[in-house]
Amino acid sequence: MPMKKNNPAMEMMDRDIAAMRRRTVGTLRVTVPAMEKALYRRFPALDHGFVRVVDYMGADSAVVQAARVSYGRGTRKTSDDRGLIRYLMRHWHTTPFEMCEIKLHVKLPIFVARQWVRHRMSSINELSARYSVLDREFYVPDESVIGVQDMANRQGRGNILPRERARRIIDILRDDAARCYDHYEGFMKGEGAGQPEPLARELARINLPVGLYTQWYWKTDLHNLFNFLRLRMDVHAQHEIREYAGIIGDIVGKWVPLSWEAFRDYRQESVSLSRHEMLAVRALASGKRPRKADLSALSGREIRELAVKLGVRPERLR
Amino acid sequence: MPMKKNNPAMEMMDRDIAAMRRRTVGTLRVTVPAMEKALYRRFPALDHGFVRVVDYMGADSAVVQAARVSYGRGTRKTSDDRGLIRYLMRHWHTTPFEMCEIKLHVKLPIFVARQWVRHRMSSINELSARYSVLDREFYVPDESVIGVQDMANRQGRGNILPRERARRIIDILRDDAARCYDHYEGFMKGEGAGQPEPLARELARINLPVGLYTQWYWKTDLHNLFNFLRLRMDVHAQHEIREYAGIIGDIVGKWVPLSWEAFRDYRQESVSLSRHEMLAVRALASGKRPRKADLSALSGREIRELAVKLGVRPERLR
Amino acid sequence: MPMKKNNPAMEMMDRDIAAMRRRTVGTLRVTVPAMEKALYRRFPALDHGFVRVVDYMGADSAVVQAARVSYGRGTRKTSDDRGLIRYLMRHWHTTPFEMCEIKLHVKLPIFVARQWVRHRMSSINELSARYSVLDREFYVPDESVIGVQDMANRQGRGNILPRERARRIIDILRDDAARCYDHYEGFMKGEGAGQPEPLARELARINLPVGLYTQWYWKTDLHNLFNFLRLRMDVHAQHEIREYAGIIGDIVGKWVPLSWEAFRDYRQESVSLSRHEMLAVRALASGKRPRKADLSALSGREIRELAVKLGVRPERLR
Amino acid sequence: MPMKKNNPAMEMMDRDIAAMRRRTVGTLRVTVPAMEKALYRRFPALDHGFVRVVDYMGADSAVVQAARVSYGRGTRKTSDDRGLIRYLMRHWHTTPFEMCEIKLHVKLPIFVARQWVRHRMSSINELSARYSVLDREFYVPDESVIGVQDMANRQGRGNILPRERARRIIDILRDDAARCYDHYEGFMKGEGAGQPEPLARELARINLPVGLYTQWYWKTDLHNLFNFLRLRMDVHAQHEIREYAGIIGDIVGKWVPLSWEAFRDYRQESVSLSRHEMLAVRALASGKRPRKADLSALSGREIRELAVKLGVRPERLR
Repeated sequence: MPMKKNNPAMEMMDRDIAAMRRRTVGTLRVTVPAMEKALYRRFPALDHGFVRVVDYMGADSAVVQAARVSYGRGTRKTSDDRGLIRYLMRHWHTTPFEMCEIKLHVKLPIFVARQWVRHRMSSINELSARYSVLDREFYVPDESVIGVQDMANRQGRGNILPRERARRIIDILRDDAARCYDHYEGFMKGEGAGQPEPLARELARINLPVGLYTQWYWKTDLHNLFNFLRLRMDVHAQHEIREYAGIIGDIVGKWVPLSWEAFRDYRQESVSLSRHEMLAVRALASGKRPRKADLSALSGREIRELAVKLGVRPERLR
Repeated sequence: MPMKKNNPAMEMMDRDIAAMRRRTVGTLRVTVPAMEKALYRRFPALDHGFVRVVDYMGADSAVVQAARVSYGRGTRKTSDDRGLIRYLMRHWHTTPFEMCEIKLHVKLPIFVARQWVRHRMSSINELSARYSVLDREFYVPDESVIGVQDMANRQGRGNILPRERARRIIDILRDDAARCYDHYEGFMKGEGAGQPEPLARELARINLPVGLYTQWYWKTDLHNLFNFLRLRMDVHAQHEIREYAGIIGDIVGKWVPLSWEAFRDYRQESVSLSRHEMLAVRALASGKRPRKADLSALSGREIRELAVKLGVRPERLR
Repeated sequence: MPMKKNNPAMEMMDRDIAAMRRRTVGTLRVTVPAMEKALYRRFPALDHGFVRVVDYMGADSAVVQAARVSYGRGTRKTSDDRGLIRYLMRHWHTTPFEMCEIKLHVKLPIFVARQWVRHRMSSINELSARYSVLDREFYVPDESVIGVQDMANRQGRGNILPRERARRIIDILRDDAARCYDHYEGFMKGEGAGQPEPLARELARINLPVGLYTQWYWKTDLHNLFNFLRLRMDVHAQHEIREYAGIIGDIVGKWVPLSWEAFRDYRQESVSLSRHEMLAVRALASGKRPRKADLSALSGREIRELAVKLGVRPERLR
Repeated sequence: MPMKKNNPAMEMMDRDIAAMRRRTVGTLRVTVPAMEKALYRRFPALDHGFVRVVDYMGADSAVVQAARVSYGRGTRKTSDDRGLIRYLMRHWHTTPFEMCEIKLHVKLPIFVARQWVRHRMSSINELSARYSVLDREFYVPDESVIGVQDMANRQGRGNILPRERARRIIDILRDDAARCYDHYEGFMKGEGAGQPEPLARELARINLPVGLYTQWYWKTDLHNLFNFLRLRMDVHAQHEIREYAGIIGDIVGKWVPLSWEAFRDYRQESVSLSRHEMLAVRALASGKRPRKADLSALSGREIRELAVKLGVRPERLR
C-alpha cells in the first residue's frame, strides 16, 4: 500500500508495521477476519496523511448481543441478526451500536483536525507541538480540487480554477509554508541569532500554517462514528475531511457489514421530510396536486429542495 | 395550579414558592416574560409528581447569536431569526441550540427516573435514600390508563382493562406498596424489635417499589432537551414519562417559541424515509407505480409502515 | 467458579460460557493472557449477581503508545513503560488511559444499578422491564452485613444487628418481595381475574422492589473506570456496590497491572491535603508545631480528619 | 476597559455593549450583582483577544439548593452554605457544581483554541473560516514573554531572551503572518490572477498561521469550569492560555465567591500525596525519619518533588 509521497520516516514505519503484522496470537474474543487484514496498515489520505486501524472491539454480533442483553456469542442465524440490526437503526435504538469500539491513528492537516475535534464523544491523544518538533509536511491541494468560492452555498467550493491560476496558488502556498517552517526551525536552532539557545517550541510554532500535518490517536464507538461519517461524508463537508471519512467508511464496511448496510439505507441515504413536506408528498402519493395552503408553509428554498428529493420539477409543487 | 392530591409538605412548598415569586430584581440578562411567569411554580404530573422550572438561560435570540458568533443581543428582525432557526434545525446544525439551558425540579416515580436517566448529557442531583427518609408516596395508575399488554408492540400498552379488574389491580398495588412502606418505616424505627436502634436507611429501603416517588434537580441544554422530548413525547414512550415530557414540551413552547416550532416541523413531526422507501416515493410522486425490484428490499413490516406514513393503502405499494 | 445460589438459567449460561471458551482464533491485536483466562466467566456477586468480562481492548502498552502517539506496539523496556504510566497518573494526564476499553455483563440489584448509572461516561444496554419478564431474584442481605444506621456518617451503616433481629428483617424482606413478585406474575397471567388478558408488563412491574435483580451490558474506558473504582471501592460507598467494584478492581489488576499499580499509589491510596492542611504539615515536617493562625482555618472536623491522615493524635494539631 | 490595541470593529462593539448595558429588566431568577456589573463587557487578553460574559445561571446558593434537592432559594445562613460548599468540594461531591452555568464570548489565537477545545464537556460555536473572512489579527508575543526552551520541563518556557533577539523573532513572526494574510486576501480577491473569481474561502485559509485570532461562544458548567481552571491556571500550562484562565478565574471569584474559595483551598492549592509519600510524611509528622524501605519506592524525581511540597531539604528525605 504505497504512500503518495514517501519519506524515510514513513518507510521505517512501514517496516515496523510489516513486523507487527507477523505476530499472531490466540484469543477468545470476537474477531473480524477482514479487520485483521486491515490492522496496523497505512491507508494514505491527501498528500501526506494516513489512517491506520490500531485496534477494534466487537462486530455486528456484539450489537445484537447487547440489544438482547444475552450472554452467548449469539446462536441465531445471520438473517435474524440483520433484521434486528436494521430494526435498531430504523428506530434510532442507538445504544447497542455504542458497544463496538475502534481506535485509529491518523495523520491529518491541522485545519482538518479542527473540524474533526468537534465530535466530542471520542478520545484523542495528539502529538504536542509544545513537546515535539513537528514534521515539515504541509497539505498542498492538488490542482484538481482547487475551486472558486461557491456563491449559492456560502461555505462551499465551486468550479475548478484554470490550471495556470491553480498552479500560481500552489506555488504561493508552498513558498509561504516553506518560509514559515524554515523560520520555525531557525527559531529552535537559534540560527542567525549569534547565540545558540533554542526558542521555546511552544512559541516557535505560532506561525506554522493550519495546513501543517499533525497526528493523533482517535478512539470512538460505532454509534458516534456513524454520526461522524454522516456529517463528514456528506457533500457539504469540506473535500479534505471527506477524504478521511471515505477511507474510514470503507473500513467500517469491512468491520460491521450489516450495521454499515443499515446505516447507509436508514441514515446516510435516507431523506427526512418535514411536517409540511409530508403534506405535499401525501397528496402526490395519492395522485393529487399538493394544496396551495400546505405549500405556502414551505419557503422557496424548501420547495426547490423538496423537488430535488422527489426527483420532480419544482413546478409540480406549485 | 393545584396538585391533584395535596399534603402538608406540598402546601408549605406552595407557600414558599409564592414568597419567592414576589422578589423581582433587575438584570441585564436576556429574559423571557412567559418563563418568568412559569418560574418556581409546580406543574402537577401523575398522582403525586410535579415539574418546576428553577432557572433558565437564553432564549431564541441566544440561538441566533451563537450561530452568528455575534456580540449583540441581535439587532435583526424576528423574521430573520425565525428563518435562521429553521435553517439550523433543518440542517442539523445543533450546537447553537446547546447555548440555551434549563434547570428543573422534578418529582417522579423511580421507574420513570430510570428511563429518564438514560439521557446522559445532563446534570442530576437526586434525593439520596441512603441519607434521607423517602416520602410515603407511590404512583398508582388511574383506572383510565391501565391497559393490557400490546401484542403487536412488544413493549407497549393496549386496550384499557375492564373497570372491575383495573380496580382490583389498583387495590393490590396500593396494599403491597403500603405494606412495604410500613416495614421500611418500622425498620428505621426499630419497631417490634424490642430494641430501638434504627436499621441503616440504605438497607431499609431495598424493598421499596419502583413506583415510589423520588425527586431531583435536572439541568440540560436545549439541544439535548429536544432529543429527550423527541423520544419521550413519542407514542412509543411509556405513558407515565410521556406525561412529564408533555409538561416540559409546553414549557419549552413558551420559552423558545421559534425553536419549538422548528423542532415540531423538522424533528418531531418529520418523517424519515429510507433509501428504498424513497425509491417508491419518487415513483409515486411522478405518478408511477413503484418498481417491484425496489419494493422487494422492504420487509412486509416496512411496507405497512410506509403506507401509514404516506396515507395510502398498502396495496398501492405492491 | 460456582454461583452462591444456582438455578437452571445459570447452569445453562455456564454451559454456554464453557462452549464459548473453547473457540480460540488468531488475532494481530494486543491481547492480555490473564484477561483471556477471565473472558466470559461469571464472577459471582452478592446472592444472585455476577460480573462477566465480555470483551476488552488494549493493555498497559496501549496507554504508553497513545501517550507517545507512536505507531509501534512499543519497543521499549517494561521498566520505561512503568515509569511513563506512573508519570501520567501522577500528573493527571488522563487521556491515554481512555485508550483502553472494557465491556462487562453485570447482574445487579436495581438500587445498585441506580448508583452505578450516575457514571455517565459509559455505554449501557439494560434488560427492559417493558419488554421482558424479569426473573424472580431479589437481593436479600446476609445477616453479617445488616447494620444499624451510622449516626456520625449520615449515609452509612454502623454496627451489625443482633442475629435475631437481622433474621426478622430478612424474613420480612423475603416475604414482601415474594408477595410483590407473585402479584407481578399474576398481573401478567390475568390470574384470579376471570379473564385471561395479561396486564401490560410496563405496568405490572411498578410494585417490584428496588432489590430486584436487573442486568446490563456496560462498557467504559480505563480512565472512567478508574473514576468509578475510586468512588465505588471507597469505604463510604454502599457495601453492595463495593462488592461489584472489588470484583472489577481484581479484573483490572490482571488486565493492566502497571496502570492498576499506579492507580492505587497515586489515586486510590493517595491523600489530598488542602491549602491549610499543608501549612500544618509543613510545620510538622520541619519539626515545629503548626501555628495557631493556620490551624484556625480548619474546622474541628477537618482537624480530626487530618490527624487520621497523619496518624497522629489530634492534640498534636492544636 | 480599554483594549490594548484598538480598531474600528472593536470600537463599534464597545458602543453596542454600552447600549446593551443600559437595558435592565425585572427577573425572578437568582442574580449576582457583581456579575451584572461584568456582563457583556470586554476583558482584554493578549494583544487582540478578549473574554466577555454573555450570560450566567445560578450562584453559590444554587449549588447548595441542588445538594439539598430543596425547593426554596435557601433560607439558611450564609455560614451554613459556606460549610456545605466546602464539604462538597473536599469530598468530591461534584454534581451540585454542575448546576451553575456560564457562557462566554472569547477571542483567542487558534493555537490557544486548540488547547481549550480538549475540554469536551462544554458547548462551542466558533466562527467558521469556510463561511466568514477572518480578521487580520495575529498573536505576536510581547518581548517580555519570549523565552527559551526549558530543558528540565520539556514542554515549558525558560529564561527570557535578550531584547535584541526577541525583537528579531517578533519581526519575523509579523512579516510572515502579514505575507500569509496578504496572500489569503489576494486568493479571495482573485488579485494578480487576471480573473476576478475568488478562491473558495475554505482553501484560501490553509496557510494562515495558528497564531491568527478566531472567536467563539463557549458555555460550560461550574464543575467543568473548575477542571478547566485547575489545568489552565497551572504553572505548567502555556503562558497564553493561562492569561485567559486567569481572567476567567477572576470572573468566577465574583460570580460564586464561596465555591471559588473552596476550589482554591481544596483543589487548586491542595497537594496530593501518593501512598509512599504519605508513609514518609507520617514519619516526619511523628518526629521520626522516614524509613529507607518506604523511601526506596519513590523515584529521585519524586523525592525532589516531595521536598518542594513539604518545604524541607531533600536530605531530610534520605
